[in-house]
Amino acid sequence: MKIRIGIVGYGNIGRGVEKVIPQNPDTELAAVFVRKNPERTIIKTPGARVYTFNDAKDLTDKIDVIILCCGSATDLPEEGPKYAAMFNTVDSFDTHAVIPQYFEKINKAAANKTAVIAAGWDPGIFSAMKMLSEAILPDGATYSFWGPGVSQGHSNAIRKVAGVKDAVQYTIPSEKAVKEVRSGTNPQLTTRQKHTRECYVVPEENADLAKIENDIKTMPYYFADYDTTVHFITEEELLKNHSKMPHAGLVFRGGNTGENKHMMEFSLKLDSNPEFTACNLVAYARAAARMSKEGNFGAKTVFDVPLSYLSPKDGITLIRELL
Amino acid sequence: MKIRIGIVGYGNIGRGVEKVIPQNPDTELAAVFVRKNPERTIIKTPGARVYTFNDAKDLTDKIDVIILCCGSATDLPEEGPKYAAMFNTVDSFDTHAVIPQYFEKINKAAANKTAVIAAGWDPGIFSAMKMLSEAILPDGATYSFWGPGVSQGHSNAIRKVAGVKDAVQYTIPSEKAVKEVRSGTNPQLTTRQKHTRECYVVPEENADLAKIENDIKTMPYYFADYDTTVHFITEEELLKNHSKMPHAGLVFRGGNTGENKHMMEFSLKLDSNPEFTACNLVAYARAAARMSKEGNFGAKTVFDVPLSYLSPKDGITLIRELL
Repeated sequence: MKIRIGIVGYGNIGRGVEKVIPQNPDTELAAVFVRKNPERTIIKTPGARVYTFNDAKDLTDKIDVIILCCGSATDLPEEGPKYAAMFNTVDSFDTHAVIPQYFEKINKAAANKTAVIAAGWDPGIFSAMKMLSEAILPDGATYSFWGPGVSQGHSNAIRKVAGVKDAVQYTIPSEKAVKEVRSGTNPQLTTRQKHTRECYVVPEENADLAKIENDIKTMPYYFADYDTTVHFITEEELLKNHSKMPHAGLVFRGGNTGENKHMMEFSLKLDSNPEFTACNLVAYARAAARMSKEGNFGAKTVFDVPLSYLSPKDGITLIRELL
Repeated sequence: MKIRIGIVGYGNIGRGVEKVIPQNPDTELAAVFVRKNPERTIIKTPGARVYTFNDAKDLTDKIDVIILCCGSATDLPEEGPKYAAMFNTVDSFDTHAVIPQYFEKINKAAANKTAVIAAGWDPGIFSAMKMLSEAILPDGATYSFWGPGVSQGHSNAIRKVAGVKDAVQYTIPSEKAVKEVRSGTNPQLTTRQKHTRECYVVPEENADLAKIENDIKTMPYYFADYDTTVHFITEEELLKNHSKMPHAGLVFRGGNTGENKHMMEFSLKLDSNPEFTACNLVAYARAAARMSKEGNFGAKTVFDVPLSYLSPKDGITLIRELL
């Protein structure tokens, strides 16, 4: 019997999950849930239906795991606990600062269900790599770099600047900083030394370009602490050259055993950030289904899941093929 | 109360474990076990004592986890099950071909104990990376490269060649092959295309160098399938330039979601192969102690261990600091 998956929210990640499910032959898409107007959402999976959020409570016996593919800012804090009370769930909640509170809320809600939170790639397997490498090399330093790739959060921040019609922001890791970290010197690096930011901005007609550029570059937290470059382009150029969502990232752990140095490096290069996030969510949905069957309820993170639970292969096959 | 660790076998890995224990403040060295003449083994840890293998049965209440630091060829198959019947154990058994049989033997022995097998870096966390990345990107290909670094197995094979006094062998990954894999083309690669082998050989006096070189290069399995270079050097040069045990390795998973390609890469660069192996063993010893407390007995692999069990930090601290 396949793991029956429900998708909540049909944006980039939700569509990614739908695309990835057929690559995982032990899973199938049972239903997609949208906030309103399900009749206007056309999905690609024959046999699966689109429902509203309100219909979910009537489908608890038709779905094994819900993958929550809605935003972390307002949707997940509201919808996450509701779904976790009714279903096993997986999400890619990514507001780092409030994850402990989110964990607590979900943990209370998931009294009889298993809810894996923050199981994308960052937070998610990047966090797993940081944890694993720190445990193996306790005497050392951990570094993370992001990009080259599109940051949705920073792109959205630019879109809110007066005079901006549309924008895409690329986060670029500093080659110099990456090289220094990789060499094993465990350097002290400032925010500015680690990443630069490249902004492709479509201005509104007759907008004050100098003001837009200044508003972006001085924006606290998002840009003020970085070397930021602003390129003004046309809407056509943005659509043609900047509509993909690639991303990349690096986690380093440089540590030592006395006089001997050791470097662990984990890197990702992704053509599509949301589709790779979807890959992670489906693997953790498999784990959620299994942990739930074992009665291992409550909120879980990537730290709690035995790696074998992510694979459709059984224990002895994993040992034979991969150990 | 600290996790009391016993080391069985005081070679490179055993000494590495002793060196790493103080970096893990929740662990302490309780005892070292050697096959014979314990009075001749001088260890560095004040308060810990050296015993013979035979003494172990009298120390079951003094030790929480035994780290088995003896060879995979003959020692572990014999000693592993004996210790796993009496203690929680961790080892770095690395004879890939017979791991399933070893797992079965240990699993039977560890009826009331937890025994984590093959928990070095390969097999070990390299296997974990292969498993994790395959589960996340089911439609793809996995590649492993080893080196640049010393292979003990290949060095030993050369030492058995007639006319060879001593030797060190370096395994070198092909830069071209690594570049091709990293680019995401998922190429088909032969054994010869992936690695080359560099041998530093000290010949015996008046040995036939041409014959030694030919014997090495044509040795089945070890060298015949590789482009191998043989350098003859003096004993002094070997001692001066080739007595360290660095190693390195790479695991790649190139996969796709439809038209989009994704690359996961995990790499290690190690000044000391045995000391990094020791780092892994101590982290998995922590996990073995915890699984045993929970009654989760039997043979385990890196696939079975939740990552959080490797860390001395508690769950909420891990979430706050690392998720």
